[in-house]
Amino acid sequence: MAASTDDLIAKLKAALPVGSVLEGAEAAEKAQGGWSRLGSPRAVLRPASTEEVSKILKLAHAAGEPIVPWGGKTGLVEGGEAEGHLVLSLDRMNHIEEIDVAGGTATVQAGCILQTVCDAVEAEGALFPLDLGARGSATIGGNISTNAGGNRVIRYGMMRDMVLGIEAVLADGTVISSLNHLIKNNAGYDLKQLFIGSEGTLGIVTRAVLRLRPKPLSQDTGFVAVESFEQLPKFLRHMERALGGTLSAFEVLWEDFYKLVTTEPAKGKPLLDYGHPYYVLVESMGGDQQEDSARFEKALMAALEDGQVSDAVIAKNQAERNQMWALRDDVGQVARNWPIFTFDVSLKIADMQSYIAEVREELAAKWPAHSLMVFGHLGDGNLHVIPGSVPEHTPAIRKEVEAIVYGALRKRGGSVSAEHGIGLEKRPYLGWSRSPEEVALMRTLKAALDPKSILNPGKVLEPTGAHAKAAE
Amino acid sequence: MAASTDDLIAKLKAALPVGSVLEGAEAAEKAQGGWSRLGSPRAVLRPASTEEVSKILKLAHAAGEPIVPWGGKTGLVEGGEAEGHLVLSLDRMNHIEEIDVAGGTATVQAGCILQTVCDAVEAEGALFPLDLGARGSATIGGNISTNAGGNRVIRYGMMRDMVLGIEAVLADGTVISSLNHLIKNNAGYDLKQLFIGSEGTLGIVTRAVLRLRPKPLSQDTGFVAVESFEQLPKFLRHMERALGGTLSAFEVLWEDFYKLVTTEPAKGKPLLDYGHPYYVLVESMGGDQQEDSARFEKALMAALEDGQVSDAVIAKNQAERNQMWALRDDVGQVARNWPIFTFDVSLKIADMQSYIAEVREELAAKWPAHSLMVFGHLGDGNLHVIPGSVPEHTPAIRKEVEAIVYGALRKRGGSVSAEHGIGLEKRPYLGWSRSPEEVALMRTLKAALDPKSILNPGKVLEPTGAHAKAAE
Repeated sequence: MAASTDDLIAKLKAALPVGSVLEGAEAAEKAQGGWSRLGSPRAVLRPASTEEVSKILKLAHAAGEPIVPWGGKTGLVEGGEAEGHLVLSLDRMNHIEEIDVAGGTATVQAGCILQTVCDAVEAEGALFPLDLGARGSATIGGNISTNAGGNRVIRYGMMRDMVLGIEAVLADGTVISSLNHLIKNNAGYDLKQLFIGSEGTLGIVTRAVLRLRPKPLSQDTGFVAVESFEQLPKFLRHMERALGGTLSAFEVLWEDFYKLVTTEPAKGKPLLDYGHPYYVLVESMGGDQQEDSARFEKALMAALEDGQVSDAVIAKNQAERNQMWALRDDVGQVARNWPIFTFDVSLKIADMQSYIAEVREELAAKWPAHSLMVFGHLGDGNLHVIPGSVPEHTPAIRKEVEAIVYGALRKRGGSVSAEHGIGLEKRPYLGWSRSPEEVALMRTLKAALDPKSILNPGKVLEPTGAHAKAAE
Repeated sequence: MAASTDDLIAKLKAALPVGSVLEGAEAAEKAQGGWSRLGSPRAVLRPASTEEVSKILKLAHAAGEPIVPWGGKTGLVEGGEAEGHLVLSLDRMNHIEEIDVAGGTATVQAGCILQTVCDAVEAEGALFPLDLGARGSATIGGNISTNAGGNRVIRYGMMRDMVLGIEAVLADGTVISSLNHLIKNNAGYDLKQLFIGSEGTLGIVTRAVLRLRPKPLSQDTGFVAVESFEQLPKFLRHMERALGGTLSAFEVLWEDFYKLVTTEPAKGKPLLDYGHPYYVLVESMGGDQQEDSARFEKALMAALEDGQVSDAVIAKNQAERNQMWALRDDVGQVARNWPIFTFDVSLKIADMQSYIAEVREELAAKWPAHSLMVFGHLGDGNLHVIPGSVPEHTPAIRKEVEAIVYGALRKRGGSVSAEHGIGLEKRPYLGWSRSPEEVALMRTLKAALDPKSILNPGKVLEPTGAHAKAAE
């Protein structure tokens, strides 16, 4: 394959402006800074327009050569792994083309950084609600390809719910310009859904029309203690009802995690006494600060009186709000329990208690000195589960931990990926969350849209055909 | 084909319980009551389970025989037209299997009637928010297949946003059970999207997991007059912000339509003086009646002071609220302008004024005595446009009217179907809203999932292959 790859690179250099094809040290430099394994790409292609993306794919398709798309390289499941392959980086396609506040849309190129888009939209007086830890590096194209989630899903949904239109380039270079601006459009199949969450395996997203929301005029944040798991969904449903549609976060911290982020060397201080099994960060965003604060306090008081929560504190200012979020966000503390393995699962709220109990029990049976940190977006059914203090960080131990964490999940019909995607890392477990018929239908789609399997081959689905060996 | 159809019917009778295959007068009776043309089916199949749907499709697939799915037969674009074909009716698969308020889900069979589901969910203290005129007959399967919209899209989205999981049967009888209960699930491609809004052409939906919402505890409704189109989006964005996420309806009535529904023989009485170009029904649903009413009134007062609206009335009780909605809902009055043609389009709010002006001008040039009724869900970009008082209700005049209504839309990148779908009726105009590349990709999907084109052939897309002639 090396000779034909050289040939393709020569053709790409001839077809694209100077500086569009990076090799050697320049390519290696571009491969720095990934949040999960990227490998050493053979070359990094940097198109500046949809037309150039189309040219690249036409040539790669003719050559049967794999193309691995890169956005902000913040994926966590090795979806951008590109050892020896050609990478298509969208980093030069980073223009915000239009922000239309009256129409409620923003049209952007796929390489735009999320934070840049959010800031530009906010400056115009509106909100683009996607918010996640990687906001300063992650790109809109990556957010779309992975159907990103984050902190406000309970209020605004996932990336899928924030995209009105998409332009994507198919494996053979065909440009599908489906840049719909309309909230309602039932004229034929909703093609954009193919490219959302398919991790670059069905097409390369080049532009998008995003749906904007009104900028909230109020924010109220509380931190509460809860005495039993049964009270958590009761408290959640109570707050949803009482806040009348303005609930924007419902983050649960299991006691062990709360202790971890409030003890040295962590900088966080405990906001409520230890000794409660669950702590919840709850937040609302609305239209009138004074009225919303009164409503928020009233809702929390009712929860206290009803016994749903046993203690509560409300942020009186932005500094106190930041303190609360800092606890939730200080995920790095889990490294104190190294070796650790991190998981991002979802399951029915009703199954969570028994699920965590089973994982804890099986970890204890194997490694009495284990730790288990749990926190997550309970309202979305999404838990981050982080076993630690295991003997070693080896592939063999990882497999044992996966067997416990995913095994208990499989029994309960949970998902091995709530928001991070499948990539390479979770591919062996796709069949634990999806049926053989579902996986076969995914393959049917892949074969229909990318018959030569050149788009991010081996990600999500086991590779087939010519690249089956190469991608292993 | 007749002989092989007879043969298939014999096989179906042998494979299914007695009473599952209706022919002759029994089939004709089932074909009554459609909201658009259904034709005379050769037979109506009434499976009672997913397994029976699978058996039917296996046999039909082997025979290469078209199958037309029917839900509540309330579609408006001839998506259920079945002249001489076998119909698969889901009407016996009408069980609500589970309502899980704590988990926020309802699992139902596709033949459940929307109203029945909404009532059952409400009795358990939650809300299933889909609400549309056909609620008493339309089924969940039909709502999914057409991605139904309705009155609350601005708050809760369309059917696509209310479905967590789907079970569907593919053309060859394969059951895809993707009955996900989770809000977040990025484990592989989101297959349910294939079956939502594809009008039964890619698979038969048999069951679904619906997402429930908290039941609103308050409702506030107002009716206002607006002096210029420019003020409409300003007023919309103001209410979105000021109501902090609780805005649930923003229905605009153009003056002609307002006059029509408030003059004899209509029963409605004018709520505000005539002489304003636009009237808006605005509503919010929240968590506390007293506080929400105060907020609603304050927001309307601010809009009055700012000049966004020139007059306003707020419903003081349910009877007054019903009066307001009765005006919006008295769509039947448009028949007074017979012959009429009804359209369901969407376009950018910024383009609406010039669009309606152009349609009016072209209608006037052709038929000076024409009428033009306009109303719709402005917040969703969705207008119902009803030209009337044209000389005759003939296919030729329909074509002339379509050329005007869709021609002006095409220039502005609008959609020929906001919420009703394409079916047979709008198929000639699919290419006016979607590019050749988009239509080609739709065909790729159709060919991949239904290679013999037996599922509702000729709907949405021009028929190909064996059924091309038969479906014309």
